[in-house]
Amino acid sequence: MGNIDNTCVNAIRVLAADAVEKAKSGHPGLPLGSAAMAYELWANHLNHNGQNPRWPNRDRFILSGGHGSTLLYSLLHFFGYGLTLEDMKNFRQTDSLTPEHPEYGHTVGVEATTGPLGAGMGMAVGMAIAEAHLAAVFNKPGKQIVDHYTFALGGDGCMMEGISSEAFSLAGTLGLSKLIVLYDSNQISIEGSTDIAFRENVQKRMEAFGFQTLTVEDGNDLAAIGKAIEEAKADKKRPSFITVKTQIGYGCPAKQGKASAHGEPLGEDNVKALKENLSWPEPDKTFNLPQEVYDHFAELSKKGAAAEAEWNKLMEAYAKEYPAEKQLWDEYHAAPKADSIKANADYWASEDKPQATRNLSGECINKLKNLVPQLIGGSADLAPSNKTYMKDAGDFSAENYAGRNLHFGVRELAMAAMANGITLHGGLRTYVGTFFVFSDYIKPMVRLAALMKIPVTYVLTHDSIGVGEDGPTHEPIEQLAMLRAQPNLHVFRPADATETKAAWFAAITSAKTPTALVLTRQNLPQLPGSDRDKALRGAYVVSEAKNPATMDGILIGTGSEVQLCLAAQETLAKENIDLRVVSMPCMDVFAEQDEAYREEILPGKVRARVAVEAAGDFGWGKYVGLDGATVTMSGFGASGPAGQLFKKFGFTAEHVAEVARQTVAKGR
Amino acid sequence: MGNIDNTCVNAIRVLAADAVEKAKSGHPGLPLGSAAMAYELWANHLNHNGQNPRWPNRDRFILSGGHGSTLLYSLLHFFGYGLTLEDMKNFRQTDSLTPEHPEYGHTVGVEATTGPLGAGMGMAVGMAIAEAHLAAVFNKPGKQIVDHYTFALGGDGCMMEGISSEAFSLAGTLGLSKLIVLYDSNQISIEGSTDIAFRENVQKRMEAFGFQTLTVEDGNDLAAIGKAIEEAKADKKRPSFITVKTQIGYGCPAKQGKASAHGEPLGEDNVKALKENLSWPEPDKTFNLPQEVYDHFAELSKKGAAAEAEWNKLMEAYAKEYPAEKQLWDEYHAAPKADSIKANADYWASEDKPQATRNLSGECINKLKNLVPQLIGGSADLAPSNKTYMKDAGDFSAENYAGRNLHFGVRELAMAAMANGITLHGGLRTYVGTFFVFSDYIKPMVRLAALMKIPVTYVLTHDSIGVGEDGPTHEPIEQLAMLRAQPNLHVFRPADATETKAAWFAAITSAKTPTALVLTRQNLPQLPGSDRDKALRGAYVVSEAKNPATMDGILIGTGSEVQLCLAAQETLAKENIDLRVVSMPCMDVFAEQDEAYREEILPGKVRARVAVEAAGDFGWGKYVGLDGATVTMSGFGASGPAGQLFKKFGFTAEHVAEVARQTVAKGR
Repeated sequence: MGNIDNTCVNAIRVLAADAVEKAKSGHPGLPLGSAAMAYELWANHLNHNGQNPRWPNRDRFILSGGHGSTLLYSLLHFFGYGLTLEDMKNFRQTDSLTPEHPEYGHTVGVEATTGPLGAGMGMAVGMAIAEAHLAAVFNKPGKQIVDHYTFALGGDGCMMEGISSEAFSLAGTLGLSKLIVLYDSNQISIEGSTDIAFRENVQKRMEAFGFQTLTVEDGNDLAAIGKAIEEAKADKKRPSFITVKTQIGYGCPAKQGKASAHGEPLGEDNVKALKENLSWPEPDKTFNLPQEVYDHFAELSKKGAAAEAEWNKLMEAYAKEYPAEKQLWDEYHAAPKADSIKANADYWASEDKPQATRNLSGECINKLKNLVPQLIGGSADLAPSNKTYMKDAGDFSAENYAGRNLHFGVRELAMAAMANGITLHGGLRTYVGTFFVFSDYIKPMVRLAALMKIPVTYVLTHDSIGVGEDGPTHEPIEQLAMLRAQPNLHVFRPADATETKAAWFAAITSAKTPTALVLTRQNLPQLPGSDRDKALRGAYVVSEAKNPATMDGILIGTGSEVQLCLAAQETLAKENIDLRVVSMPCMDVFAEQDEAYREEILPGKVRARVAVEAAGDFGWGKYVGLDGATVTMSGFGASGPAGQLFKKFGFTAEHVAEVARQTVAKGR
Repeated sequence: MGNIDNTCVNAIRVLAADAVEKAKSGHPGLPLGSAAMAYELWANHLNHNGQNPRWPNRDRFILSGGHGSTLLYSLLHFFGYGLTLEDMKNFRQTDSLTPEHPEYGHTVGVEATTGPLGAGMGMAVGMAIAEAHLAAVFNKPGKQIVDHYTFALGGDGCMMEGISSEAFSLAGTLGLSKLIVLYDSNQISIEGSTDIAFRENVQKRMEAFGFQTLTVEDGNDLAAIGKAIEEAKADKKRPSFITVKTQIGYGCPAKQGKASAHGEPLGEDNVKALKENLSWPEPDKTFNLPQEVYDHFAELSKKGAAAEAEWNKLMEAYAKEYPAEKQLWDEYHAAPKADSIKANADYWASEDKPQATRNLSGECINKLKNLVPQLIGGSADLAPSNKTYMKDAGDFSAENYAGRNLHFGVRELAMAAMANGITLHGGLRTYVGTFFVFSDYIKPMVRLAALMKIPVTYVLTHDSIGVGEDGPTHEPIEQLAMLRAQPNLHVFRPADATETKAAWFAAITSAKTPTALVLTRQNLPQLPGSDRDKALRGAYVVSEAKNPATMDGILIGTGSEVQLCLAAQETLAKENIDLRVVSMPCMDVFAEQDEAYREEILPGKVRARVAVEAAGDFGWGKYVGLDGATVTMSGFGASGPAGQLFKKFGFTAEHVAEVARQTVAKGR
């Protein structure tokens, strides 16, 4: 079995292989190949404490190649994070703590949900941004209360995905020296050798991005791995990228170095052969882990507890010397104060002039800047259009980590991943912005935020054909449906200032649900009937029918189209067609209301319903039913002045009135 | 005005600036900065013929920075593509031929719709793949009937987007030496200097990808630009990347080199100052273009016509010497033969064993391989799972461009962009595959395909919680809604072999609509009532009620859930609840059917309707209305054996029957 360190490395291999074998499915290739680098990192370089996995100053570790979860689970098991051998035996079983891909919030010690390749790299960069920012805000001479590394481990797939190029290019630009990437380079992909699709010089690409690059020629050489990690830590200017040359499925004679090691169990015989090859005791037994292994891991784990104890002392001294900063620290690490924002007269100051909701959102951001000091955010190179800039709050750059305005460059997907990482890190709230049509690009990371239950806010402006001349490539049609269909995401499309402020309030006080704010480029009038508290219920009566008990129908609008509903209501009133107008700024929140409220707003017996929205009709059937109608877009937009486009596509009070007239008539 | 070449360069600048100024909005920065490189390319290196913009062997030119459209429109205007001065004056106006972003199929000479940055780079790589493949298939010694370059021009934004890294990494791997990228390097982004977010060494990154890299220090030096392009052409092993150092808004004293030159008109005074600065005659006049400019462009344009004439002769000789190949060439360039595929007994051979629809799709692909010789395709490193591999059809690689199996690596977004490029090139049909949950990643390029009306096919397997142990990161929930909401996309989710074959038939014979095939990982039974021709109408009665005239309700299912509907129908029949079962493999195609057919399948008077689908309920309201119900997913999936998950989430015949029972009871 060799020395105890190698025994522990092999214990990880054996445990991972046994877990996959018992589950009869899984990915043994990565754990076997990268067990040594993971062990060396966790044993000797990662500052962590299994007894308190939420310790704020812990080093972060993200397994970007999430399919190698048994590697991470093995580490969590051995390092005392509470994952039991029983949990390991339940790998991939329903409701177990060991699902195939590591899930944040589900398994203690998992820092981020991974699986979609490359995402972990983007989230790691976000964590490094958070660390740098908090350090710049809080650290004092001799009192570095924020001082930790972020490690990410991933393979060829993570490096092929564009998201990692986007994220690493920014990490290099920002000089995030506490980001250290371990590249499990095994040159095998699912379809075969990486030669078929990936012959690039990865190391050189990373240098181009501004990383220090290091190479470990033998992925089982613990000393070499340790040396590289220390060299990475020593670079105070650049993030580091360590290529660790490994063999997928290492140790299993029939499988190592082959694509077949990646995503299927080794097979009973091969597991036995692996154990024999590693000189493991009693290779016929499964989950056979010697006590000396546990003893050694327990010994190693003491360092983390000691490190945290020391940090706690440091924090105590900090609190004494800098009580105001400590108070701010606590504020950063608590939820934004909903009551105090709700009571803030300035935030809710009324507006009377027509305004674009993107401008109103910009005003919200600039008020929340003070109310929520832990707020940082930015845009994918569209800040002037998205109105996402926090005035006088500085620009986050290699020269100024205290800046609260992030410049992501034209990199929407990585931006959204970084937002996840910033939020997962703790201590900060964040928003990110782009054109609404480009929500297509961020979708995969919005999904991850929703799945992880973290409250990122997306500022999505230019929300319809109101974009005008920029034309169909820039005019969202199906994006509202796309985001509304997303589980655990609130999509707000506010109609005026009151609703925009309510939407931002909902976003900033959300605990477990990310929020998309869908905002106009063009000015909208302030609606007399709009109401904050009602808007926070997702939908409400913004203008009542003359006689609600006998109303003829209901017009439902969102955002820029609510005004058309109001005008049509007025027109039809003159014809004795009595309509209610419902503003529905958030379909998702409305769906969460109790049955009674939903029935109050949209009574089941009223069947003549018309939904009006400058987007596709997909999803409106739920509210207009089989007897209603929609005034919506039936295809793509066009390039032309916005006013002309609204007319061209039927978004006029006259057309809404006509559709409502017909719908009411049909039901009579 | 200087020599005639410089005058022509300035004519492009003046025309672009005037067009933007007249529109009172647009992007003058790129056209002014890159007019010289574009002129030099189009005048002296691009093999093209304005009189026949569809000439198959033309060099392709893609303006990846689509916001600089006035550059492209000016070139099309001057080089005789039929775009008039009047069209230029109608820039960004409703229904004009000069929308803000160039639109394929709308304006003659536009090779690809661009605007979303980086997309053009991915599409260019696709075009280069198509060229390489067609050349390998058709060229004969001395008869190089396929022999053209693909040029792409883009700026910093295109280089920041991850899609370009994905695409260029593959282009380098494949050694696509006929791909030449012109990088308009002006170091300005919308939020300011690229320093804020983009300090990387772009040139070095491109070298790492395997490109020849060249630099033109002065973006107005026509000779240097020309020399670099010729050096690029001369490299027969590597694609080339030419960094051309430019100034955004060049020539306009108050704007050049500034972010403000990017996306707003220069202003009348600045346009005048530009013209004065360029020594343009009568700077007060707008659209003032000297005849000598037109004369010179006309002279330059003769080369293209001559080149095409020569190619036509070559083609004639080729046809004589290789009549079989010429016939195949014509077949490649025609639509797949719908009638002959429809009549092919082997393709439609019946199936009786349970099968996963992904496997059935794999069989379709392997039959279409022969029926549609121009078919090439592949997966983002998931071919064994997606069943996308064409047996005995070779692997496309630097060493074998004749291979029909593409290996995209783990790069979903660029893969979908390349599929667009391959299709736009002409002569080929293509499909691309990934896990259905990762349709999130390809969404932006699916949208572009739909907007361009090109028939790409997406093979999306592992379509529900049927994924099982891989868990919620890999289990699609909202993806069906996302894709169904997409204008001009057909989303098929077939229930068995007959429907899968019908879906593939629809996809391969589609002329203007891309198709998503959503397929199971798990086996499904063959349904007795499934029907090809009915399936091609999107929805149909797969099992009729005992007494259709008085039926109690309708069960609507798709894919793997149709079998549950059939079982529930049988259960409830015993209770004298008489239900029809509708299989709806394609909601989009069904929506395109005439009113009478839709009423026949889903009679308006039958209100007790239950939709069953292992996905979110978003979008089903249109068919179940206010009185119906759904058996759908209310949130994310979980990691566990698929069979257990279907039970856990209510996808059992018993539960479907129970929901139907209640729905019918409610309506009575």
